[in-house]
Amino acid sequence: MRYLDKDAIEDIALGASFFGAGGGGNPYMGKLMAMQAVDEFGPVKLLEPDETDDEDWYCPVAIMGAPAVMMEKFPKGDEFGRVLDKLEAYTGHHFTGTFPMEAGGVNSMVPLTLAATRQIPLVDCDGMGRAFPELQMCTFHLGGVSTTPMAITDEKGNAGVIETISAKWAERLARVQTVEMGGSATVSLYPANGKQIKQNGISGIVTQCQQVGQSIRLAHNDPETALKNLLDATDGHFIFEGKVTDLLRTTKGGFNVGDIHIAGFNDFQESELVVTIQNENLFAARDGKPVTMAPDLIIILDAETLTPITTEMIKYGKRVKVVATPANDKWRTKAGIEVAGPRYFGFDYDYVPVEELLKED
Amino acid sequence: MRYLDKDAIEDIALGASFFGAGGGGNPYMGKLMAMQAVDEFGPVKLLEPDETDDEDWYCPVAIMGAPAVMMEKFPKGDEFGRVLDKLEAYTGHHFTGTFPMEAGGVNSMVPLTLAATRQIPLVDCDGMGRAFPELQMCTFHLGGVSTTPMAITDEKGNAGVIETISAKWAERLARVQTVEMGGSATVSLYPANGKQIKQNGISGIVTQCQQVGQSIRLAHNDPETALKNLLDATDGHFIFEGKVTDLLRTTKGGFNVGDIHIAGFNDFQESELVVTIQNENLFAARDGKPVTMAPDLIIILDAETLTPITTEMIKYGKRVKVVATPANDKWRTKAGIEVAGPRYFGFDYDYVPVEELLKED
Repeated sequence: MRYLDKDAIEDIALGASFFGAGGGGNPYMGKLMAMQAVDEFGPVKLLEPDETDDEDWYCPVAIMGAPAVMMEKFPKGDEFGRVLDKLEAYTGHHFTGTFPMEAGGVNSMVPLTLAATRQIPLVDCDGMGRAFPELQMCTFHLGGVSTTPMAITDEKGNAGVIETISAKWAERLARVQTVEMGGSATVSLYPANGKQIKQNGISGIVTQCQQVGQSIRLAHNDPETALKNLLDATDGHFIFEGKVTDLLRTTKGGFNVGDIHIAGFNDFQESELVVTIQNENLFAARDGKPVTMAPDLIIILDAETLTPITTEMIKYGKRVKVVATPANDKWRTKAGIEVAGPRYFGFDYDYVPVEELLKED
Repeated sequence: MRYLDKDAIEDIALGASFFGAGGGGNPYMGKLMAMQAVDEFGPVKLLEPDETDDEDWYCPVAIMGAPAVMMEKFPKGDEFGRVLDKLEAYTGHHFTGTFPMEAGGVNSMVPLTLAATRQIPLVDCDGMGRAFPELQMCTFHLGGVSTTPMAITDEKGNAGVIETISAKWAERLARVQTVEMGGSATVSLYPANGKQIKQNGISGIVTQCQQVGQSIRLAHNDPETALKNLLDATDGHFIFEGKVTDLLRTTKGGFNVGDIHIAGFNDFQESELVVTIQNENLFAARDGKPVTMAPDLIIILDAETLTPITTEMIKYGKRVKVVATPANDKWRTKAGIEVAGPRYFGFDYDYVPVEELLKED
């Protein structure tokens, strides 16, 4: 158990945008909100999963929708408490703490804000070890924890509860409401007790975000060492560097989708990397040959500052370095690949781990 | 207070398809379901609104969606109880009875089935005095009763609760879920206590459906007298007879929409009537001149049997008689016309009552 202050939040936000793998929303607004909450209510208590009580209930709160929309339609703040209240009333559980659904810019900050405001602890875990675009893409789902009952609300005050026969139906019914609510909504889902958290959470992800954030923060002194430290800390691979030359990106069905084309520099001169996105970076092919596939992580970094660039913020002409890291082992299973592997996202490839794809190089 | 047996249900189903004004779904499947429930559980107790207790809670259950879809995707039956249970649990109210949301084929039968199955009374009222396509088009809404909390479910077992800042938002969030659920869903909404029922319900509509059904049933002996009786019983006007010559009808955004063209016979030789639909018949123009506008009712009857034909059942070549009746006075107010008048449905006309439009003839 330890406490998270404003410095910690700064690093967690930065590190979470790395694990967000292009998604999870830009951390800036979320960070300001979390910092303001900590200013007002004091530091947030961070519990290790082992410190949770097996019988106590915990519940994540997250923003759902297209990150490009979230930027322009940010929550007012009362959504986080309201959506948790709705789910408490519906389930009859008292939620003694919260945790991030995913490691990703905004969605790492939302539960921190909620924890500060409500004076409840944050558990040092998430349900993805990264960010993913759809609700069923969650290690709690892989472990048999139900996505629902879940609650949903918007900034206007509309709210609802969803209870479905499958995680995919939760995704479908929540997604159409998110789109109708204007493209983004606040949700609480996967209520879990301490026992389920220990079994299914990606343990230590908040701390890992903080460490990665620290590495990136030091990049302005010595980018090369910082990149090396970053790769060491994440078992990462440096897969490309170059300049964004083409960008096909639209908002469709409540998601940001598209392709990012990057023309190579230095070791990658004459090469092109194409990264395909659905909120997150999902698939990277170098000169037509896959080099990283979901569930493994593809992270596009600013070439100078190593700041991770989310899919809605990337711009034509940007100079970038691209890093890939292996997904948590929970994703590298038959069930994990079925839920979040290349075929689910429409790529006609069997999943091959990033380290093996790079060996073939 | 009286009891409704299978004969009563037969007539109510027929009469409700008259008041359905083209919508409310074809009564056939709903009638079979209600009759089976009465066979199993006995006749249904019908309460007059004045017999309800001011403090007791009552709640309608209805099928939402495009009638053309309802026909192919009829509820299994457990939806009615499930959606009421969800709303009871959410609101904390015990619903001591139910009533139809609208007078319309299926949606008059659904609460009857529920009442029989649960052994609770049906109240002799509805919230429209006809059928309308959208949830906010309800006299309870006009009277300030909230549409939500409402519950929604499908035949697969998915369910949800919706709580919104306005009736229109309830319509929007329920509609997108209905579409996602396959085009039709079962809902419970407008929970109301006895006091609210007395103030806002269209009193006696179930009995009126039964009487109209009886009139129509006698048509095979003497169609002319039957039509006269029907018009007398409903303050109705005989506005057209002819043959369906063109039919533009599609399912769009969870509604059946389109135009029905009818070429005139007898007194209407050389004339054409065009009826515009959105689930219900909403606007009738004779040779380009409006003769009936929502909220007034337009009912297309089989020329021989006087059986009302719902919008999804009407066919090219069908010989029909068209009748118009005035909407309940609750609709002929500024608020009523705003919610369900011609301009809301996209017609560039101010509302003129049917009896005045016909006087101008």
